[in-house]
Amino acid sequence: MSSFFGNHLKLSLFGQSHGEAIGMTMDGFPAGMKIDMDRVLFEMARRAPGKNRMSTPRKEADAPEILSGVLNGVTTGQPLTAIIRNTNQHSADYGDGVDLARPGHADYTGHVRYFGFEDWRGGGHFSGRITAPLVFAGAFCMQYLEQQGIGIYSHIARLGNLQDDAFDSVHPGQYDALKHMTLPTLQPGLSEKMEQEIIRASEKQDSIGGVVECMATGLPAGLGAPFFDSVESILSHLLFSVPAVKGVEFGDGFGFASLLGSQANDAFRMVDGRVETVTNHSGGIQGGITNGMPVVFRCCVRATPSISQNQDTISIKRMENDTISVHGRHDPCILARVTPVIEAVTAIGLVELLKERASCMKSV
Amino acid sequence: MSSFFGNHLKLSLFGQSHGEAIGMTMDGFPAGMKIDMDRVLFEMARRAPGKNRMSTPRKEADAPEILSGVLNGVTTGQPLTAIIRNTNQHSADYGDGVDLARPGHADYTGHVRYFGFEDWRGGGHFSGRITAPLVFAGAFCMQYLEQQGIGIYSHIARLGNLQDDAFDSVHPGQYDALKHMTLPTLQPGLSEKMEQEIIRASEKQDSIGGVVECMATGLPAGLGAPFFDSVESILSHLLFSVPAVKGVEFGDGFGFASLLGSQANDAFRMVDGRVETVTNHSGGIQGGITNGMPVVFRCCVRATPSISQNQDTISIKRMENDTISVHGRHDPCILARVTPVIEAVTAIGLVELLKERASCMKSV
Amino acid sequence: MSSFFGNHLKLSLFGQSHGEAIGMTMDGFPAGMKIDMDRVLFEMARRAPGKNRMSTPRKEADAPEILSGVLNGVTTGQPLTAIIRNTNQHSADYGDGVDLARPGHADYTGHVRYFGFEDWRGGGHFSGRITAPLVFAGAFCMQYLEQQGIGIYSHIARLGNLQDDAFDSVHPGQYDALKHMTLPTLQPGLSEKMEQEIIRASEKQDSIGGVVECMATGLPAGLGAPFFDSVESILSHLLFSVPAVKGVEFGDGFGFASLLGSQANDAFRMVDGRVETVTNHSGGIQGGITNGMPVVFRCCVRATPSISQNQDTISIKRMENDTISVHGRHDPCILARVTPVIEAVTAIGLVELLKERASCMKSV
Amino acid sequence: MSSFFGNHLKLSLFGQSHGEAIGMTMDGFPAGMKIDMDRVLFEMARRAPGKNRMSTPRKEADAPEILSGVLNGVTTGQPLTAIIRNTNQHSADYGDGVDLARPGHADYTGHVRYFGFEDWRGGGHFSGRITAPLVFAGAFCMQYLEQQGIGIYSHIARLGNLQDDAFDSVHPGQYDALKHMTLPTLQPGLSEKMEQEIIRASEKQDSIGGVVECMATGLPAGLGAPFFDSVESILSHLLFSVPAVKGVEFGDGFGFASLLGSQANDAFRMVDGRVETVTNHSGGIQGGITNGMPVVFRCCVRATPSISQNQDTISIKRMENDTISVHGRHDPCILARVTPVIEAVTAIGLVELLKERASCMKSV
Repeated sequence: MSSFFGNHLKLSLFGQSHGEAIGMTMDGFPAGMKIDMDRVLFEMARRAPGKNRMSTPRKEADAPEILSGVLNGVTTGQPLTAIIRNTNQHSADYGDGVDLARPGHADYTGHVRYFGFEDWRGGGHFSGRITAPLVFAGAFCMQYLEQQGIGIYSHIARLGNLQDDAFDSVHPGQYDALKHMTLPTLQPGLSEKMEQEIIRASEKQDSIGGVVECMATGLPAGLGAPFFDSVESILSHLLFSVPAVKGVEFGDGFGFASLLGSQANDAFRMVDGRVETVTNHSGGIQGGITNGMPVVFRCCVRATPSISQNQDTISIKRMENDTISVHGRHDPCILARVTPVIEAVTAIGLVELLKERASCMKSV
Repeated sequence: MSSFFGNHLKLSLFGQSHGEAIGMTMDGFPAGMKIDMDRVLFEMARRAPGKNRMSTPRKEADAPEILSGVLNGVTTGQPLTAIIRNTNQHSADYGDGVDLARPGHADYTGHVRYFGFEDWRGGGHFSGRITAPLVFAGAFCMQYLEQQGIGIYSHIARLGNLQDDAFDSVHPGQYDALKHMTLPTLQPGLSEKMEQEIIRASEKQDSIGGVVECMATGLPAGLGAPFFDSVESILSHLLFSVPAVKGVEFGDGFGFASLLGSQANDAFRMVDGRVETVTNHSGGIQGGITNGMPVVFRCCVRATPSISQNQDTISIKRMENDTISVHGRHDPCILARVTPVIEAVTAIGLVELLKERASCMKSV
Repeated sequence: MSSFFGNHLKLSLFGQSHGEAIGMTMDGFPAGMKIDMDRVLFEMARRAPGKNRMSTPRKEADAPEILSGVLNGVTTGQPLTAIIRNTNQHSADYGDGVDLARPGHADYTGHVRYFGFEDWRGGGHFSGRITAPLVFAGAFCMQYLEQQGIGIYSHIARLGNLQDDAFDSVHPGQYDALKHMTLPTLQPGLSEKMEQEIIRASEKQDSIGGVVECMATGLPAGLGAPFFDSVESILSHLLFSVPAVKGVEFGDGFGFASLLGSQANDAFRMVDGRVETVTNHSGGIQGGITNGMPVVFRCCVRATPSISQNQDTISIKRMENDTISVHGRHDPCILARVTPVIEAVTAIGLVELLKERASCMKSV
Repeated sequence: MSSFFGNHLKLSLFGQSHGEAIGMTMDGFPAGMKIDMDRVLFEMARRAPGKNRMSTPRKEADAPEILSGVLNGVTTGQPLTAIIRNTNQHSADYGDGVDLARPGHADYTGHVRYFGFEDWRGGGHFSGRITAPLVFAGAFCMQYLEQQGIGIYSHIARLGNLQDDAFDSVHPGQYDALKHMTLPTLQPGLSEKMEQEIIRASEKQDSIGGVVECMATGLPAGLGAPFFDSVESILSHLLFSVPAVKGVEFGDGFGFASLLGSQANDAFRMVDGRVETVTNHSGGIQGGITNGMPVVFRCCVRATPSISQNQDTISIKRMENDTISVHGRHDPCILARVTPVIEAVTAIGLVELLKERASCMKSV
């Protein structure tokens, strides 16, 4: 089952890149929330292509249409469905059935999975475009989280070999600015260097990858559970469903490999009557459960596989070797556009966790 | 919800370190499989403590008792339940209710999550001991997978700063030997160095972490799905439920950050009428779906938080600062023991994926 | 969670009577099925209002628009989404927020459930209109089932005090005709009597209920499971989600109360090398699992609560006693229109069961 | 998948009649509840066999052993597991593999479902004995519900042709006595008549069925949801998993067939500032959601299929016609013993619904 998620907040994602429309349904979203549609559209614009030299010139008319679940701008608590029409499809770019499997793409695996009946046009249901409704769903979740005092921030921690600073290198007051940066970074001047790096890759008909770091602040302690529904399990499940994400690490993540226990443990202390940890190596999660500190994680995003260089591949129709050069409109770097998607699935996961927590009852 | 997993192969895990018994129920396991109990016990012995200087001297009597689901040594296809009695509990080691929160452990977060009613003794339901029934479940899955020509292998890719070679550095014929090594490594002589490193940490009353690399071979193409049930989503969900795992990466994982698209893509080619990729940067997964190449991933395992050095912490009862030194019987390194757990959850996840795949129907 | 169903075939239902659109997403539907859209529309027309004196004069433009999951008329195996626009809404009929709770309707319970934020117009998400996408989904499932040799038939077994004969009173060759009857009955001439009964109720500003009997033929033995996923559990779960269904019974159902064991048991026998039962008291299900005989069940459908007589009720806004007369366009009897809905959810449940069965693996 | 239930309160049921043990795991049960084990055992004793002439002389040692989830008599909120050893198995009664399919039993369907590998002894996983852990789970849920002011009561509404009165025929103060009656009825003297009827059936080597009516009082309005998770859907799903239940109806149930809308509707009124309905035809549920009135439903329980009369059947091994007479220890009527099972699954369903409700959040 591919396109359904969640036990408490239920999400369904649908659509293909070149079908009639893409969209999502979310059930279990809190009732009574006044939606700020401008902010929803702002999040969707962050993900949208065609903004500058670094992204594809396609202009998606990503205007979502809400079909149900909102009445007079307020959520009803009933299934929330929104769709986005596919208007700029250029189907003539695509032949009759998938043939040359684009390396790094799902052309071949999708062909096997769907017995050859898949909509292959423009990546079909595998297209990064399908993340647009994810961002829509996440934008609703974010507004709810914000009401609860929870914020989600992210920056490009690494692009190629350019490394950004950590979140605690700047004042929390600066986090909000990240959402307004095309290439959000904490280190001054780094965005420009990253932009140069992307343009260099683009000029070589190549693409480039990196790492997004994300942080959720203001979470209560007690979210998540040991074993199968740990915070890490829920979030990684969602994060690995974002195309191009190939690694997820929490807190010090793979850095833990070179830390001794004495270096890796986060000492507890009382601060103003509240429990805190002095350090946050664990990324705010112990035993799969939030401890009230910021939840911090990083996702590695591989370079987009669409490059116009010649690549060896096979013809699916003929089952023979062949070569391909992926032409068309493609991003040399999707880090900027994937960042709001990562924030969106994080928001979805956190509402799922908050709802699960709310269902935990204590005997009187 | 903490202890239930799966839509097709359903798993329930139960027990606390110092309760009557721990165990698991698995529903949906294939019927008609003759179980080799020696191999099940072998897998459980790999995880068991008390084997040598590097692990805790506790001797768990980890003999599983099968309560249901097996008749005359053959699986019935009905719910399979096994329990392991807790016999060596030393409950006198534990006071009356959790007080000093052990840094890095779930004492505090579990206390919040369960409103103070949790069984805190020896980590309770958070204890690494609860992974014993996971290994039991995984051992059944492994035997089924083997019948399908699927193998699961792993080695300690890194311990502190000691780095092992990659899987392709040795002949596949050598993979089977890994299961018989206390510290499984591919590079000759590395195990001994790792052992020295662990003893060094132990002598400093400290512990040490590392990375486990795991590979599944023989998988058919077509397992998994785009978005929410990608192979990466299913496996990471399970892997992050293993205590101490803080990072999961597939294929080149975080290494993708410094690869250009042209370097990261896996070219396709036909070999003996079958589709292969020349390289395997993607770890055998494209668009969330297996491509028939080995699925390769790595998990970072943090140093066990139980160290006898003095650490700052709080008293949960008094909500005041305090210090703790975690005495008792603890592993200075859990890499060796966590390796079979990682293989076990991988086996569980793969049977889940195979069952999901079997449910995909094609119109006649 | 209200609007999601299924573990193998996943279904999401969305929309309110007076929102932009209603619709459904179905994931896990078999790939490669050529859709006969005329038959889908035929099923939807059976459910549609406005056909005659016995149903509401509203003319729903129930033309479904497929947004995803079908390519060139063939299912892709990917999420299938269809919507139906709400075009004939007459919102002026509805005031500002729910006030007088219509007896028998969900006005009051929905108001509590959704904290007063529900879309109350025309029943909102509770409206019988939301069953249109259910019929759409069911029509796809029916076509798949038919390919597998499975048929679903139903008739109005009772309306008020008029009782129809049982399925075995006519030749199976006559079952197909039922779908083409406005009030499908097996007994000749009964439809006309039922129609008179409905008109009589209508003239008294009243409505009338009845019983639908449904039968699925051609099912293989072995579908379903003991306990929580018995065939009865899965089907009743779906059937009780159809508005107005208040009772479900399988085989002899409540008639079993007056049967001795010797009368209730179905003897087995071999017929042409196949296992059959001589009688079918159990409705084709033993131990929750199909035995290869027809699955037979009945649903009681209450008289529609919308009647124009004066009724005592409360004002939700003022929390005071009041009276209401439900004016507008309402069916005096929904039996005819609910019959295709019952068939539709049956088809959905059977595909779920077939997919679950396909996921059951046997060791080699 | 047979043996797992629930999204919020998760339940797993395991065991075969003649395996080592049967049992259950329940996750998500409220933490901090002091268990009255005497009352748990009392509920289990109600279901136990061997109490009198009307039930089988088998003496099950149904003493449950709690393995996890309870500490010092208080629930921890962590997975709760209990097992019951199978000690009185008489396996010599059973041959080598199922052969003669007992009519009305799951011998044949289970054989198909599990590919011939099922544990057939004594009904195996299909045995009514597997309901013992269900009653255990339900007894925990009942104690929690009671703390919330919710009561569950039931009586034998019908046995053969003997009909009991309705709940409102007696004072609510008398409901508690029902749990202490072997054949709980509201009409004075009816139990004795039912007992005679059962003995009569028994003397004819036959068995007899009936109807159990169940009522839950004290429920808040707002539980359940339209469509797939209606109260009726959740409860019927569970009720139809109880062996021998073949019909479920809510409120007036099948009686609705002969009610006009004006007779079927429940008028609302304010009583002491609370919303009530004057009648309760709907059984306390409108649009799938509780309205605060008692939830009332009835289950038809077929006569137990185990009778010692000669019956026609087939040999599964030889696939030939044969005859069978089911000897051994069997109940002539299971109504008395199934009543606590019906109450138990009702309690489980209500906790599931309460937890789902608790997860519904409203925007601030």
